[in-house]
Amino acid sequence: MEIEVEQSKLAKALSAVSRVAAGARTTLPVLSNVLIRVDKKKTTLTTTNLDMAVEDFLPTSLAKDGVVTVPAKLLSEFVANLPGNEVVNLSVNGDKVVTRSGKYSSVMNGTSAEDFPELPEIDEKKAVKFKIGVEEFKAGLTQVMVASSNDLTRPSLTGVYFNTNDGALYVAATDGYRLAEKKLIDKVKSEVKAIVPSSSLAEVMRLLGDNDDEVEIIFDDAQVKFRLGEIELTSKLIDGSFPDYRRLIPEKSETILKLDRAELSRVTKLAALFAREAGGSIICEAKEAGVFSVSSVANEFGENDSEITVKVTKPNKVTLNARYLIDALNVLSDTQVIFRFSGGLAPIVVTNAKLDDYTHIIMPLKGKG
Amino acid sequence: MEIEVEQSKLAKALSAVSRVAAGARTTLPVLSNVLIRVDKKKTTLTTTNLDMAVEDFLPTSLAKDGVVTVPAKLLSEFVANLPGNEVVNLSVNGDKVVTRSGKYSSVMNGTSAEDFPELPEIDEKKAVKFKIGVEEFKAGLTQVMVASSNDLTRPSLTGVYFNTNDGALYVAATDGYRLAEKKLIDKVKSEVKAIVPSSSLAEVMRLLGDNDDEVEIIFDDAQVKFRLGEIELTSKLIDGSFPDYRRLIPEKSETILKLDRAELSRVTKLAALFAREAGGSIICEAKEAGVFSVSSVANEFGENDSEITVKVTKPNKVTLNARYLIDALNVLSDTQVIFRFSGGLAPIVVTNAKLDDYTHIIMPLKGKG
Repeated sequence: MEIEVEQSKLAKALSAVSRVAAGARTTLPVLSNVLIRVDKKKTTLTTTNLDMAVEDFLPTSLAKDGVVTVPAKLLSEFVANLPGNEVVNLSVNGDKVVTRSGKYSSVMNGTSAEDFPELPEIDEKKAVKFKIGVEEFKAGLTQVMVASSNDLTRPSLTGVYFNTNDGALYVAATDGYRLAEKKLIDKVKSEVKAIVPSSSLAEVMRLLGDNDDEVEIIFDDAQVKFRLGEIELTSKLIDGSFPDYRRLIPEKSETILKLDRAELSRVTKLAALFAREAGGSIICEAKEAGVFSVSSVANEFGENDSEITVKVTKPNKVTLNARYLIDALNVLSDTQVIFRFSGGLAPIVVTNAKLDDYTHIIMPLKGKG
Repeated sequence: MEIEVEQSKLAKALSAVSRVAAGARTTLPVLSNVLIRVDKKKTTLTTTNLDMAVEDFLPTSLAKDGVVTVPAKLLSEFVANLPGNEVVNLSVNGDKVVTRSGKYSSVMNGTSAEDFPELPEIDEKKAVKFKIGVEEFKAGLTQVMVASSNDLTRPSLTGVYFNTNDGALYVAATDGYRLAEKKLIDKVKSEVKAIVPSSSLAEVMRLLGDNDDEVEIIFDDAQVKFRLGEIELTSKLIDGSFPDYRRLIPEKSETILKLDRAELSRVTKLAALFAREAGGSIICEAKEAGVFSVSSVANEFGENDSEITVKVTKPNKVTLNARYLIDALNVLSDTQVIFRFSGGLAPIVVTNAKLDDYTHIIMPLKGKG
């Protein structure tokens, strides 16, 4: 095996794939390696952590068939430190991989490609496919991933639920305390119900280049593949059922407020500063006088109260975790937002005032009044 | 006590002083507070961690005499989140501190100023003073602080040694493995020998504004004060003696090489990647053929060898820690550097090729050849 390729292209590809590779001290050493395969003069770099795999198709000026694996992060850092605008030659000599560029060279101990675990191929003919613009994909996933859980004891909540409903593709996530749903693609013909690990989606988001304009999403029963230009990320799906979340979204609320997003965010942050001792618990109250007040419960350091002038049709009061409201306001996009609630333990709904493709639900805390 | 001040000015001053204050969970709670004192209409904010204190003289539009302490980080974050371009009113009501700005308000529990520890004043009439431009101060201190130690069991090595010699002010630092010395001010009349904690200097560096053009440094026997515009940082000196470092700098070396700094840095970084298993140990060799080679010792991942063409008068070989050489090259400033050594365990000297006000010494490791 031998390839020749511009330093900048090789460095970029290695940087993309090496993040998924394990560090030097893993129990299965081959997982810290990158698989370099040249097959019919086509060069592919692959890394995997067993849950997902990243492949990069590398345009090379010279490519002799063969396959080898070498430590991914070491090769990536070595190539990154070579001079730009020069050609790098990478060749296999016995079980050694020699990397050369001008006066610089290294010899790495390669290991056989036989032990390198590869994820099963997705049969694209039988698979379900969607296409979406990169910007919409990024924006939509960012809006829901904030609500996904880190709690590994409930695996299905650690992912994002891709599901079709009424001819549209939705993504949803919940950690049991809040829920976010986004309509990702308006009109689709295929159907899907699949939970994609948030960790895989986070990697997809990082891999999305500035030049790509489309993401292709390909599902089979057990896996999903994201195709982003020259890069493909394949991930296992999470085995399990996602909560029947649509029935959790209240259709109506007693109190509906239209608020300036920046102002609501400011008063929530101010109250949150004083709510640290109380686990982030703040009190939101719509008062008859046309005032929405956000306050923290008094603690050892002090207390805080801020008011927003707003039209109030029905007074109501709710206690919630400030962090969740700040998260929701950060991912909403309109200048104005709708904050609706019914008091007590009924879910709070936060949406954009104009756009109606995104819904964020926050479960209230048990209040003191 | 009552003050009124623009939000941006108060936020900036609180941000500057609150970094030195302790977090909420300290054993001496008053150390997490900022002391706000209005004396003859002059407002001062002070924080301290007992080793150093930061004071900020705040220009206020209204100032009624009095003194109080409140949680520094809480007040700083609260004020930072208030709208800009508005006036903030801060007043004391019994043991409560009320902060108001438009519709936003908070009440914090203040504590008496009596318990607030203040560092002893420096008597400026008896003190030794120096003045230096901000840019020279920053550059000079950055060049030596890299060599200072974190090892608290040898306190005198955790500081920077300000010392006058032959009518010039020098700063020096060493961790026992390397040593850096910079001539900070060329001609001075006063004399000083004082070890300033690196932690205090790091805070001074952070506090240096873009607008300040001069730093005033004021020493007495036990303390040093840095005056930076409206901000003053006072620090205890480290009690102890600094090594007699000048005799450690070899006057002559057998092998003297003039090298491109960027190229030497590159080959050192490439070799360092392969030297991780060997504790960063790399081999530098000047060969008769006019080649300077930097290589790593073979390890389980592989090995690396790079060459620089250079005039060699006497061949020599030395083993050193790559990290130290990379650190030194990062803080040198010329395009060309002088790398001189005598092989074996004689210290290596790295300096700028043109500027002669900075010396960096690296102790070699025991080599294998």
